[in-house]
Amino acid sequence: MSSYLITGTTRGLGLTLTRQLLEMPASQVGKVIVLNRREPTPPLQELINKYSGRLFPVTAAVADTESVNKAAEEVKSILGSQGLDVLVNNAGFQAFSENGVLGMTEEQLTSSLDINVTGPHRVIVAFLPLLRAGKEKKIINITSSMGSNGWAWFTKHAPSPAYKIAKAAMNMLNTQYAMYLQDEGFTCLLISPGWMRTDLGGPNADLDVEEGTLGTKNVILNATKAENGKFLNIHVPGKEESFGRYDGKEVPY
Amino acid sequence: MSSYLITGTTRGLGLTLTRQLLEMPASQVGKVIVLNRREPTPPLQELINKYSGRLFPVTAAVADTESVNKAAEEVKSILGSQGLDVLVNNAGFQAFSENGVLGMTEEQLTSSLDINVTGPHRVIVAFLPLLRAGKEKKIINITSSMGSNGWAWFTKHAPSPAYKIAKAAMNMLNTQYAMYLQDEGFTCLLISPGWMRTDLGGPNADLDVEEGTLGTKNVILNATKAENGKFLNIHVPGKEESFGRYDGKEVPY
Repeated sequence: MSSYLITGTTRGLGLTLTRQLLEMPASQVGKVIVLNRREPTPPLQELINKYSGRLFPVTAAVADTESVNKAAEEVKSILGSQGLDVLVNNAGFQAFSENGVLGMTEEQLTSSLDINVTGPHRVIVAFLPLLRAGKEKKIINITSSMGSNGWAWFTKHAPSPAYKIAKAAMNMLNTQYAMYLQDEGFTCLLISPGWMRTDLGGPNADLDVEEGTLGTKNVILNATKAENGKFLNIHVPGKEESFGRYDGKEVPY
Repeated sequence: MSSYLITGTTRGLGLTLTRQLLEMPASQVGKVIVLNRREPTPPLQELINKYSGRLFPVTAAVADTESVNKAAEEVKSILGSQGLDVLVNNAGFQAFSENGVLGMTEEQLTSSLDINVTGPHRVIVAFLPLLRAGKEKKIINITSSMGSNGWAWFTKHAPSPAYKIAKAAMNMLNTQYAMYLQDEGFTCLLISPGWMRTDLGGPNADLDVEEGTLGTKNVILNATKAENGKFLNIHVPGKEESFGRYDGKEVPY
């Protein structure tokens, strides 16, 4: 029975991942804590009602260190001495710029870096003591193939240069944690969850939210120490040759 | 005759690159502008005196947008309608953390991202009109092999995780500009100048400042549009097998 903390779960991937995990037997997925800066949205509130005693919402903004640290205290009281098994850094922010990087404002870049890079760092710092007490020791950083230099031409059409730059930085953040936590048995893993038809991904995306989330969930569940430090695509059977190359293999940095 | 703007030239690589360029014939290297947040150091002042009429100091902090924009106005009046040929984003900031990323403070991360990522972006935005008017259209971003995920274990000993994360982001910044400026004939290039015995590199580094700077200068001078979007190591003959792999080839992202 593993515990999870997922950030950014009011909609899209975070919300669906929360639900898909809770649909698993309680013998496998125990307490799930969701961390959001806003009050629960109606669909999240519905899950909270349905899974009372198993799903716990906490409020904090990943941009606000103090609130993240307070959330960690709250989560500690929920989980007790068992600690936290799996942290999923999913909260993110995507700013859109016309004409790519030539239209990127300074504000878009600084806020993207703060939320997508410093945010996960704040969360890891705050929850590391709980993760050390847990048994799985997984830190999952939800990134994007847009953070890949190797695939940059392939994702050029996506008009979010600040997000791409921030995700490249988040990838290196994961690389650093992977190296420094390896000897403690941690798995620090980057997952590109694919291009999904969410509010963020738009209607023309490759995957529906359920299949993209299922692929992401499978990578999280199957991850072992051998995956520490990797940057993985999800695997969607039958879509290995599609635009997003959903083959479950490593994405180039 | 090409004009240069180099940021961060009070010491180390920036200072030495300025001198090495000015030692070239004025028929090849024309006006060199150096942008620093501080008043010239004695060795820079010596160069300014020696190369009066060819070397121009301007004062601006890459962390301060307004000062960078004012510097661009000043540089425009120095260069006139010829525009600027080569921009070298060299200014950077390295924060040291004990125990790698486990000791990295939030302040180290945010200031590293601001100076090493948003800083070059500010400079590119401010000087792009002048670069478009120039004939070489080179944007050189001085990065580091520490910004390489592929070489992360190789540079693990370097206790500057925030710098590594910021340089990975700077690399993606270059990738984005390379894609969006390619059709205008630009060369946006990342250079890892090697580990040098500067104040930043310490006494145990691989290269003395002169040879590391010479290697960097050669990459800048030889860069053509074919190098647009690349991440290159410098070439130091005889040191291809040394720790820093100075083979002039591409560094993995």
